[in-house]
Amino acid sequence: MNNEQAQARLGAVIRKERERLDLSQEALADQVGLHRTYIGSVERGERNISLANIIKIANALKLSAADLVKKAGL
Amino acid sequence: MNNEQAQARLGAVIRKERERLDLSQEALADQVGLHRTYIGSVERGERNISLANIIKIANALKLSAADLVKKAGL
Repeated sequence: MNNEQAQARLGAVIRKERERLDLSQEALADQVGLHRTYIGSVERGERNISLANIIKIANALKLSAADLVKKAGL
Repeated sequence: MNNEQAQARLGAVIRKERERLDLSQEALADQVGLHRTYIGSVERGERNISLANIIKIANALKLSAADLVKKAGL
């Protein structure tokens, strides 16, 4: 699996989990102190996201980073 | 947990798993196409490592990225 595929998988899981919690991209962005457009680009698989942001986003989605990464099959 | 603590935990697990496989930092670096000094800085917790590098390093250590992150308690 190449980086783009991995980023796309993680982004899709983030979107699914965000929607599961009925959070908008804006609301999630506010919670983690990141910009809405950044969240959008992560969800579209356009970002080689860092550990710190994986943890922030996972926790805002009530998941551990390991759970989030596992749900993406990575 | 702040970013530095998370980076330090992940770095410590990478070192432990590398040593479990009797790999030098140089050998691990060669396998993943990264520089030995980068591996050293990751192990010392000095890097906000990216998803792509987490996956590369995990796979070289015969682990999934999720397993590696989980072993670090993240």
